[in-house]
Amino acid sequence: MRAAVVTDTKFEVADLPTPSPGRGQVLISVSRCGICGSDLHARTHADEIADLAVATGYDHFMRSGQSVVLGHEFSGAVVDYGPGCRRRWKAGTPVVALPIVRHGKQPHLVGLSTAAPGGYAEQVVVQESMTMPVPNGLSAEHAALTEPMAVAWHAVRRGKVGKGQTAFVIGCGPIGLAVISMLKAAGVRTVVASDFSPRRRELATACGADVVVDPATESPWTAAPKKSRINGVTDILGLGFDTMERLRRVPNLPWWYVFRLAHTLNAGPAGPVIFECVGVPGIIDQILTAAPPLSRVVVVGVCMQIDRFQPAMAINKEIELRFVLGYDPGEFRDTLHMLAEGKVDPMPLITGTVGLSGVENAFTALGNPEQHAKILVDPSSSAVTPV
Amino acid sequence: MRAAVVTDTKFEVADLPTPSPGRGQVLISVSRCGICGSDLHARTHADEIADLAVATGYDHFMRSGQSVVLGHEFSGAVVDYGPGCRRRWKAGTPVVALPIVRHGKQPHLVGLSTAAPGGYAEQVVVQESMTMPVPNGLSAEHAALTEPMAVAWHAVRRGKVGKGQTAFVIGCGPIGLAVISMLKAAGVRTVVASDFSPRRRELATACGADVVVDPATESPWTAAPKKSRINGVTDILGLGFDTMERLRRVPNLPWWYVFRLAHTLNAGPAGPVIFECVGVPGIIDQILTAAPPLSRVVVVGVCMQIDRFQPAMAINKEIELRFVLGYDPGEFRDTLHMLAEGKVDPMPLITGTVGLSGVENAFTALGNPEQHAKILVDPSSSAVTPV
Repeated sequence: MRAAVVTDTKFEVADLPTPSPGRGQVLISVSRCGICGSDLHARTHADEIADLAVATGYDHFMRSGQSVVLGHEFSGAVVDYGPGCRRRWKAGTPVVALPIVRHGKQPHLVGLSTAAPGGYAEQVVVQESMTMPVPNGLSAEHAALTEPMAVAWHAVRRGKVGKGQTAFVIGCGPIGLAVISMLKAAGVRTVVASDFSPRRRELATACGADVVVDPATESPWTAAPKKSRINGVTDILGLGFDTMERLRRVPNLPWWYVFRLAHTLNAGPAGPVIFECVGVPGIIDQILTAAPPLSRVVVVGVCMQIDRFQPAMAINKEIELRFVLGYDPGEFRDTLHMLAEGKVDPMPLITGTVGLSGVENAFTALGNPEQHAKILVDPSSSAVTPV
Repeated sequence: MRAAVVTDTKFEVADLPTPSPGRGQVLISVSRCGICGSDLHARTHADEIADLAVATGYDHFMRSGQSVVLGHEFSGAVVDYGPGCRRRWKAGTPVVALPIVRHGKQPHLVGLSTAAPGGYAEQVVVQESMTMPVPNGLSAEHAALTEPMAVAWHAVRRGKVGKGQTAFVIGCGPIGLAVISMLKAAGVRTVVASDFSPRRRELATACGADVVVDPATESPWTAAPKKSRINGVTDILGLGFDTMERLRRVPNLPWWYVFRLAHTLNAGPAGPVIFECVGVPGIIDQILTAAPPLSRVVVVGVCMQIDRFQPAMAINKEIELRFVLGYDPGEFRDTLHMLAEGKVDPMPLITGTVGLSGVENAFTALGNPEQHAKILVDPSSSAVTPV
């Protein structure tokens, strides 16, 4: 089979042996495979990511010098089964799968390890237990967006945003855009998006953001149509204070009941939920400094470098930082069905398609935010530049 | 009235005019007032804290050069009421109060602002709406611990620790010790405490910690009697993976139900809850690096300096950082009642008492963790060294 193989940052199309599905595994033919920000990272900084993966328990992440087939955001069709499969779907059935396979007891990251070649190829091996059929005639293009949209769906779920809470999305790259789409799909009424790039701001609007801001000229924090009622540390104090002062004037209300009631009234005074989708040093501290008190910050952007921040600022504002990674199988399945039922539209994200021989050009094009958001690889296409 | 006044880090006992309670305010005589870590900070680094307070909306924090009566952890007895009070309790009734008063619309921090003199004095003014009677004949010594124990209670509530989850308390200063006591009062079965000081480790045991570790010789993370079942990033992946592989073997289980079930089974796979009670640069990064995946870190220690950390490590482990501040009136009230009903014992924390003329010596003594944890000021005592 043909595959785009990367070695020391250079791509070339190679003819590899057709992979053979192991126990409980399925061979699928790739219809489309998205190019992810992690792929861009892994191409140039494999060793740094691999070191971090070792520190957190995974010692098979790709290293520089190795030849790897990248790609973990794929849709495809069933070709063949390995031994021990339940063979749930007949050959040709369109499917997606979580990019994870197992050799023995060891799970491997498909498309980010030499142990599990990825989807920039005509065929890929997946785990049957992690595979699901594409319903409702959803197109292969849109089905391939299941993986990145599931990352966004997981982030939105971890953010626990109430429909009436304001959500801020800082950075409108592919993941920021997917977060905007998922927030709107979840019914959040006010989504404020911020990006320096005019093109990315256009896409943010297309994804459904209610307010879109250029942070070079306007602060996202003051652009929200409905301002948070909590603007300073004295408002945190004052919130309880005002409640207590108001309640003490109610005739015949026992004092102990006032305290009990204040408990409930002040439970989870909701600041906004902020999605950090930039992932560069300094952005977390900027958010801590500028964000309203009692904000919840969901950190989706991956900053690999050492970063600096002021803990006391986060304490004075009672801020919560939730770092998020991936999704679970249920979130992946729900995302696929949201796409198939038209609850979320991935169209604005998809800005181009290339063939296997165009992968290197596509990686270059993705370096410019004015050009592209998500580029899909179509192994059957001969396009060498994204169209 | 006599009061210990601090000016440019030096304490002296001064004779000040008896304060006059304003509208909705109560004058109370001080029985005991605890010395807080914030007081030690404020004495030497007032301007840094004041600058941070301004950045978060409060511009009346004490400044160097000002003469201030510190003290915000007090118990006392009702003396007199200002206009507009409901006069709920007769003179002499033992009370505690949240250290917050209001002038006009502006709330002020009692004992940390020239606008609201604190409890290192014979008398202090509090807000009637923030005052509550001390029940059950609880002693003035123990009642004075309501404020710091409420800080710990708020931290424990924000940590949402399940009784079966392991809680780690890193740093056993007064707040770390109070957190240990409150975790045990909340029924958490396994509390692992860590401190370099032998004396603090003794106190941690006295407060109820189940495992107490010297981090110079032993890692708290491996000292937990029951290890987290999640040890690495592949276990996060593997957790979903194993579930899926197991479920797919169940006969007649529809595949979509498997995904639905995995959603529930994997919901909130609980790592430990870690209480950071040290508050020095580097400690948050140490915790992120060493802590198990899916940990929730409650940051109670106040690090005023710029700090460094690696966001990607927190992302790979899906860690949550909850920065906490203070308490709400209901938590304060609940803490008082937990003390009064014997659900939590503050005795191990209290290591000494001084008179007003001993405050400077007490501050010095608190610099040495081998000597003291919590020292109370008794305005009627003539002790110049903590006894």
